[in-house]
Amino acid sequence: MANIKYPIVDVHTHVYLPRYAAELRARTSAPRILNWTNGSKTEERLLILDGEPSAGRPVGPQYWDRDEKLEFMQKHGINISFVSSANPWLDFLPAARAQTLAQELNNDLEEYCATSPAVEAFSGLKSLYGFGLLPLVPEVEVSTIIQTVEQLKSLPHIRGVIMGTKGIGKGLDDNALDPMWDAIQAAGLVVFIHPHYGVDSTLYGENNNGHVLPLALGFPFETTIAITRLILSGVLDRFPDLRLLLAHSGGALPQLSSRLASCIHHDPIVAKRLKHDARYYLGQLYFDAVAYGSEELTFVSRTISRASEFQSGGGTVEAKVGSTRLLFGTDHPFFPPLEASQKWPSVEDNLAAIRGMAGVDSKIEHHANILGLNALRLFDLHDQLYA
Amino acid sequence: MANIKYPIVDVHTHVYLPRYAAELRARTSAPRILNWTNGSKTEERLLILDGEPSAGRPVGPQYWDRDEKLEFMQKHGINISFVSSANPWLDFLPAARAQTLAQELNNDLEEYCATSPAVEAFSGLKSLYGFGLLPLVPEVEVSTIIQTVEQLKSLPHIRGVIMGTKGIGKGLDDNALDPMWDAIQAAGLVVFIHPHYGVDSTLYGENNNGHVLPLALGFPFETTIAITRLILSGVLDRFPDLRLLLAHSGGALPQLSSRLASCIHHDPIVAKRLKHDARYYLGQLYFDAVAYGSEELTFVSRTISRASEFQSGGGTVEAKVGSTRLLFGTDHPFFPPLEASQKWPSVEDNLAAIRGMAGVDSKIEHHANILGLNALRLFDLHDQLYA
Repeated sequence: MANIKYPIVDVHTHVYLPRYAAELRARTSAPRILNWTNGSKTEERLLILDGEPSAGRPVGPQYWDRDEKLEFMQKHGINISFVSSANPWLDFLPAARAQTLAQELNNDLEEYCATSPAVEAFSGLKSLYGFGLLPLVPEVEVSTIIQTVEQLKSLPHIRGVIMGTKGIGKGLDDNALDPMWDAIQAAGLVVFIHPHYGVDSTLYGENNNGHVLPLALGFPFETTIAITRLILSGVLDRFPDLRLLLAHSGGALPQLSSRLASCIHHDPIVAKRLKHDARYYLGQLYFDAVAYGSEELTFVSRTISRASEFQSGGGTVEAKVGSTRLLFGTDHPFFPPLEASQKWPSVEDNLAAIRGMAGVDSKIEHHANILGLNALRLFDLHDQLYA
Repeated sequence: MANIKYPIVDVHTHVYLPRYAAELRARTSAPRILNWTNGSKTEERLLILDGEPSAGRPVGPQYWDRDEKLEFMQKHGINISFVSSANPWLDFLPAARAQTLAQELNNDLEEYCATSPAVEAFSGLKSLYGFGLLPLVPEVEVSTIIQTVEQLKSLPHIRGVIMGTKGIGKGLDDNALDPMWDAIQAAGLVVFIHPHYGVDSTLYGENNNGHVLPLALGFPFETTIAITRLILSGVLDRFPDLRLLLAHSGGALPQLSSRLASCIHHDPIVAKRLKHDARYYLGQLYFDAVAYGSEELTFVSRTISRASEFQSGGGTVEAKVGSTRLLFGTDHPFFPPLEASQKWPSVEDNLAAIRGMAGVDSKIEHHANILGLNALRLFDLHDQLYA
C-alpha cells in the first residue's frame, strides 16, 4: 500500500447555504444572523443559542460561499468534502416551513455539489458531496419525513442526511421514528448525528469561559446521550444495517462504554432488553476523527476493534479493525485560527492526530483508510476511484 | 517486583454512617430513606434524587454496618478500604446543621476506622481509613470550612475529604473557595471529587431506562464539568500540590482533553489564561480505576503519561507514568449483583480491567501500584508497609 494514491476526504465540514443564511437574517431571535457593531466596525454575527456569550461569533463568506470552501480544501490538501448544513438545521421552524425549506435546501445542495469541479487525478469523483436535511420538527407527519428521504434518494450527490438529537420533539429514541430509520436504511443513506443543544448552561457556572464549556463538553455530551438512547431503545438491534456517523469521534461514548455496559447489566429494567452487550454496538457505528489527539483516536479505534468480543451468542464473528470506521474531518468553517496563519491549526491538529496514532503506520493502509478510503466505501463511491 | 507483597486497597467505597442514615430516615423529601411496601414485602429504600425511577433503590446493612464492609472486603481479597460518605453528603442541609453534622460524622468515621482490625501481614496498617466531610453548603462561612479542615488534620485515620461539585452554591471554581484549597493543600488531605446531580433529566427522554442514563452518563458528565471548571478557573495553577482524585476514572475528561485544549486555544476569552495546555493538568490529577474496561484504563493511563509533553516553557520535565496515578476502587455498596453470586461482578470487572491493561504486566510493578501501592503513597501511608 506504500504507493497507493487516494484522495483526502473531509466528512465533517459545514455550510450555511445562501437560502438558509437569508432565513437566519430575517429572524429576530436565536438562531439568527445579525449586524453587530463594535466601535466603528460592523460585522455579521451568528447567534446560535439564546444567551450565547460574546454576542455570538463572527460569520462571513466562509459560511456560505462555495469558492471559500474550495479554497480552504485546496490550502489543506483536501480533495473531497462531504458538506452538511450546520446546526441548528430546521429545528426552530414550524412543520410546514421546515418541510418546504428542507426540500429547497436539498436541491440547492445537490446543485452546489453537482456543479463542483472533478477531483484532479480521480475524474470519476466530484470535489463536493452532501448530507441533506429532513424536516425533523414537532408536529411533522412521519410520512413527510419519508417523502424527503425519497427526495434525497433521487439526488445523486447527496449521500446522507445530517440530523440533530431532538427528532420530532422526543429525541431520536422515539418509536414513532422507526419508519424513518427503515426508509433511511433501505435508501442506504448515511446518518450524521451532530449536536447542537449541549446540556443546561447553568451547569457551567458563573465564570466567563467563552464558548469552551458548551463546545468542548456540552456538544460531545449531547451526542453521547443521543447514541446511548438509540442503543437502549433497540434501534441498533432493529436496524443493524443503518449507517450512523457520530460527530466528534462519538463524544464520550467510547470512554463510557464499559461503564454503560456495567450499568445496563446491573439495572433490572434494562438488563435483559438488548441483543448484545452495549460495547458491541460501537462496532456497528462510524466515528469522525475530529478529536484533536492521537491517543484519543487510537482509543476510539480500540473500542471499535473490541466490539465483536461482545456479540451475544458467540458464533464466528469477524473481528473488526477499528481504523476502518474512523473518518477524517475538519469541522470547517468553525474553529478558525485566532491569529493569521497559512493553514488552520484545528485541521493540522486533526491530521497530526491521525498520523500519530499507535499502530497506524503510513506504510500500511490505516492512513489511507482514515484519510479517505473509509469515506469512499461508506458513501458507496469507492468504485469511482477507478472510473 | 515479581514477589512483592502488597495489600489490595479500595479507594472508592462508600458508607452511610448510622448517624447519617438516621438523618435521612427523618426526612420527608429526597434525599431520604423510606419504608417501601411492595405487596406483602416491606423494605427500606433510598431515594437520592426527587423523581428517581423505581422508587429509589433497596438499602440495608451493607450501607451502614461495618461488619458488612469488612465481610465484603474479605470476600473480594481487599485488605484496606478508604471509606467515604456516599452522596449527597450534607448538600441538602442548612449551614448550621451541616457544620455540626460534618464534625460529628468526621468523629464517627475516625472511630469506625481507628477501631478496625489491623491488616494481616501488614500490622502497621488498619483495614479502614476514611475521607471526611466539609460543610460545603450555601451561606456557610469559609472560616467554618477551614475549621473543619483543621479538625480533619487532627483525626489520624481520616486521610482526605470527599466532596460533590456544588461548593458553597456556585461550584468548585468559585474564587471564594481559594482559602479552602489552600488549607487542604497545606494539610495534605486528598480531595475525592464525586458526582451526585448529573445533568438535567429531561435530556434522557421519556423511555424508561431505569437508572442507566444518570449513572452511566450523568455522573461522569458532572465530574468532567467540575474538573474542567477547576482547570479553567486556574485552581490547578494556583494550587499545584493539591491532590485531587477523580471518581469513575475522570468521567469523560481523558477522551475530551484534546478537544478541550483545542477549544481553549481557539477561544479569545480563555486562550491565554492558563499556564499550560489543558492536557498538562491530567498529569497533576489522580483517577480511580472504576471504568470496567481494560481499554479505558489503558487510555486514561496514556493521557496521564503524555501530560508532561504539554507543559509550557519546556525545561526538564519528568515524564509521568500513567499507571502511578490510577487507583483501584469498587464503588461498594452500589452496583450489587442482580442475582445471587459469590463475588460481585462489578468488582470482578474492575479487577479484570486492571489485569488486562495493555503494558501492565503482573511481572512488573504496575499491577501492584494500581491495586494498592499508589494508594498507600497518595495517602502517605507507604512507610507503614514496613512498620
